[in-house]
Amino acid sequence: MIRHVISAFNPQSCTVKAFKEPTTEDLSHDFLWRIHKRAPSRGEIVVFNRSHYEDIIQPRVHKTIHKSIWSQRYEHINAFERCLSDNSIKIIKFFLHISTEEQRKRLEERMNDPSKQWKVSERDITDRKFWNSYTVAYQDIINRCSNSWAPWYIIPANKKWFRNLVVALIIVDTLERMKPKFPKPTINLSKMTTDI
Amino acid sequence: MIRHVISAFNPQSCTVKAFKEPTTEDLSHDFLWRIHKRAPSRGEIVVFNRSHYEDIIQPRVHKTIHKSIWSQRYEHINAFERCLSDNSIKIIKFFLHISTEEQRKRLEERMNDPSKQWKVSERDITDRKFWNSYTVAYQDIINRCSNSWAPWYIIPANKKWFRNLVVALIIVDTLERMKPKFPKPTINLSKMTTDI
Repeated sequence: MIRHVISAFNPQSCTVKAFKEPTTEDLSHDFLWRIHKRAPSRGEIVVFNRSHYEDIIQPRVHKTIHKSIWSQRYEHINAFERCLSDNSIKIIKFFLHISTEEQRKRLEERMNDPSKQWKVSERDITDRKFWNSYTVAYQDIINRCSNSWAPWYIIPANKKWFRNLVVALIIVDTLERMKPKFPKPTINLSKMTTDI
Repeated sequence: MIRHVISAFNPQSCTVKAFKEPTTEDLSHDFLWRIHKRAPSRGEIVVFNRSHYEDIIQPRVHKTIHKSIWSQRYEHINAFERCLSDNSIKIIKFFLHISTEEQRKRLEERMNDPSKQWKVSERDITDRKFWNSYTVAYQDIINRCSNSWAPWYIIPANKKWFRNLVVALIIVDTLERMKPKFPKPTINLSKMTTDI
């Protein structure tokens, strides 16, 4: 998805950050530390591939940390996104929804294509058993962390062309509403001459 | 103060971070970005010399940004410190309170001592005119951002020996309440032998 939609952007001001398994250093800090470091500066677009929501989803589904810890994180995330938003950073979040059947088809395609086999991890396959737990966990983050300043969009994603179209339309609409302007000149141009 | 109190710590696990004028990169992000990056990892002590509170104090006293912006920051700071605290990072904040007369004495000592003159900036002197505005601004941050999970301590600091003693006592008391423990061994020692 990212490849299709983001290829329209200029990499000078648009970067993609994939959040993979946290490093030892990441884990020694609060869960938002590695996220905040990669937040965009003003005028920049950063696409997060996965994000701080994994820090609720994964421990909840796999019961790796106690509920008393991960359940505080809804509030931490809402406050964090509010702070970014108040500081002029526009946040939009996409949940790409596919069916179990479509996921099985895509996994099998990858497993059978030598040029894509490297993308398949054991986790991708074993995690399918947790489909229902993931669904409940995602429903809760979407319900509890969709705010006017940082909305979640649920994208029907079985058909890639439809997914790409909808995501592109939402991004275009969001950018248009932001009414981006050219910076003002930093010098008084009326007093400058190009004469030699 | 930092020199006196912190010299008792081992620099392996205690560092000092002085927040000076924000860089161009800092300013291109939300005001907590440069702060969060330097937050301690678990088991580490970081002493902040100035902090995110400057981002309320300075713009308020010198009217460099609109009230609608800096007044949101009390809430951002409370939520940020709450998140750190929920992630096992203990925060204590010291306001070192001296009188105008004591400040004048210290400034004049610096201005007359060739080995200390480099420490004096023009701002140190011109800012004295804003003493009352600073007092109001500090009162507000202490009132609005002192929480059980991140308290402010107001330290009478005209006498350096007294200031140092009080700060040291609070740090010792805080560390004792945290009941630090040695990490558990990562191997089963009962099954290990040092025989060759």
